[in-house]
Amino acid sequence: MKVTLNRSAFTQELQTVQRAISSKTTMPILTGVKIDLSNRGLTLTGSNADISIESFLSVSDEKAQMTIEKTGAVVLQARFFGEIIRRLPEDYFTMEVIESNQVIITSGKAHFTVNGLDAESYPHLPIVDSHNQIKIPVHVLTKLISETVFAVSQHESRPILTGVHMILENEKLLAVATDSHRLSQRIIPLESGEEAFNIVIPGKSLTELSRSLTDEEELVEISIMDNQVLFETASMKFYSRLLEGTYPDTNRLIPNSFNTEIEFSVPELLAAIERASLLSHEGRNNIVRLHIADDGVVLYGNSPEIGKVEEDLSYERVTGDPLDISFNPDYMKAALRAFGDTNINVRFISAIRPFTLEPTEGESNFIQLITPVRTN
Amino acid sequence: MKVTLNRSAFTQELQTVQRAISSKTTMPILTGVKIDLSNRGLTLTGSNADISIESFLSVSDEKAQMTIEKTGAVVLQARFFGEIIRRLPEDYFTMEVIESNQVIITSGKAHFTVNGLDAESYPHLPIVDSHNQIKIPVHVLTKLISETVFAVSQHESRPILTGVHMILENEKLLAVATDSHRLSQRIIPLESGEEAFNIVIPGKSLTELSRSLTDEEELVEISIMDNQVLFETASMKFYSRLLEGTYPDTNRLIPNSFNTEIEFSVPELLAAIERASLLSHEGRNNIVRLHIADDGVVLYGNSPEIGKVEEDLSYERVTGDPLDISFNPDYMKAALRAFGDTNINVRFISAIRPFTLEPTEGESNFIQLITPVRTN
Repeated sequence: MKVTLNRSAFTQELQTVQRAISSKTTMPILTGVKIDLSNRGLTLTGSNADISIESFLSVSDEKAQMTIEKTGAVVLQARFFGEIIRRLPEDYFTMEVIESNQVIITSGKAHFTVNGLDAESYPHLPIVDSHNQIKIPVHVLTKLISETVFAVSQHESRPILTGVHMILENEKLLAVATDSHRLSQRIIPLESGEEAFNIVIPGKSLTELSRSLTDEEELVEISIMDNQVLFETASMKFYSRLLEGTYPDTNRLIPNSFNTEIEFSVPELLAAIERASLLSHEGRNNIVRLHIADDGVVLYGNSPEIGKVEEDLSYERVTGDPLDISFNPDYMKAALRAFGDTNINVRFISAIRPFTLEPTEGESNFIQLITPVRTN
Repeated sequence: MKVTLNRSAFTQELQTVQRAISSKTTMPILTGVKIDLSNRGLTLTGSNADISIESFLSVSDEKAQMTIEKTGAVVLQARFFGEIIRRLPEDYFTMEVIESNQVIITSGKAHFTVNGLDAESYPHLPIVDSHNQIKIPVHVLTKLISETVFAVSQHESRPILTGVHMILENEKLLAVATDSHRLSQRIIPLESGEEAFNIVIPGKSLTELSRSLTDEEELVEISIMDNQVLFETASMKFYSRLLEGTYPDTNRLIPNSFNTEIEFSVPELLAAIERASLLSHEGRNNIVRLHIADDGVVLYGNSPEIGKVEEDLSYERVTGDPLDISFNPDYMKAALRAFGDTNINVRFISAIRPFTLEPTEGESNFIQLITPVRTN
């Protein structure tokens, strides 16, 4: 293998696959990045127990200015290799594999000789079955992820809840996540009727996927295999394992009726919740109290040691019964951040039943649920 | 106490004194900020075992837009108070002390009630003796600090070496720091002959002082007391304890003769050292080797596991004997960063004697010393 190419184009590709590479792994070869040079271009691969990323830089990519002298493959320790490339003195560099998988990296007057590993011993990525493919715009997928993934459980006590449940059926893709205290569900209408699927993808994989997708890509193709899902764009293949087990039936959790309804501007409510949570975080229970009555809507937070806060909330509209309800402000903050700068309707049954949050526009495609805290 | 003022002007003042406030302290009142409102303005104080900072916001400061209704004083838990102020909804806020040192903080519709402590129980700061005062420009002091403080020892085994030695005599201020492996010394000529002093200031105090000084201030006045030093600007008083003990005689460490001299551009040498240290960091000894000979100057770094690097160095000029010398690249990196974008002369006696680095312009006012590593 011998190739000369632009350093920043290569660095960008390397950073993408490095998301999948951990220095803490029981398989030494997985601390490495696989570099595979064909006449078509340069393929980099990184992998860990949960995800694998394959990135491709084409020989015809103008940014790369790639000159291929000899094809071949090698595996290099990823962290060092990345540091070396980052610190090279010139805009271009040359990589050449000599005997025993040693690689000479040259840029300007700097010459590195780095020990590599045999590319043949690198694990193979799953073979993609061409069934079960859907294509959706990248920005739709990243929004779907950001609207749901924060609600997955962070605890391994119920592993299935650390994933996002995705169901494709009836020309709709439904994504839902819950940690049993709060829930977030988004539905995307699709244009054509693909073959149905029902999978649970680890939340961490989706977070890494979001970070790996760039605005330059337009479409992502999703393929399901036995225990893997593949997200593919023009320049990247992102594989994640699937979680095994049955995801709970979340549909029955979402209430159909309510007794109190109030409309808020999200940024204003969020700022007030953030203020109230400053003190609730110091209390033993981390709760804030929302008081809805004819004479106004007030938010209370307190900590016996530090002090207390109360704030008259601005709202757009309120209907129904008066209510006093307490909840964890951190769930509310995460929920509000997922809505962005918009208005929402919050609907309550009673002080002890979960309440829902939905945008006033485009309702029924995006709903969140928060379980209150009983205070007596 | 009751006052209304601009939130961002107050926040800036609060951030300054918060540098001295630690949440880990055995004296609970020192987790607080002392707020003292007189008819002249608002004085904030923060303190820990090493440093104390007093900051003053004048009633006549236009940015503050201060309206004083009633003077007084109180101590508030600094971290929470800062968080609360930062999250208030409006540009202005009101603080009022009610009974039992409780403070009501109001901004827009948000009302906080925070538990405070009696200002009378806050420790008194040292009384300043008006002897031993010098005035120097802020930018000169911060440069002096950045040129020396990185070389103090990080280990408490010889506490005196954790400080910067400052000597005022013969219309010169000399600052020197060493951790016994490297040394950095800067001399500043002063305009008038102040009373001599000889003190050791903790490196950590000087680092905090640098961060607290703003470009808006022009002059800083330095006063020495028994076991304290005070740095005073128009808006801030910064106190630090002094280190007790005798600082070693560093003057005899600086060599007067040399056998090899080479001139480098600092940014170019720094980049090469950074590349070489990528591999040396993985080796057992963390050393790089510099080879100076008639046929060129080469820098070598290697790690048995990862690989090796060699680089022909660019240099301006070389004279004297050929030399092979090994040293810790981290000391060299820190030294080079302190010089900035300039040229330096590096002068060697032999492979086992400390070598010096001095800027080619303005020599003799700034000198650094690095002890090599014997490799055989």
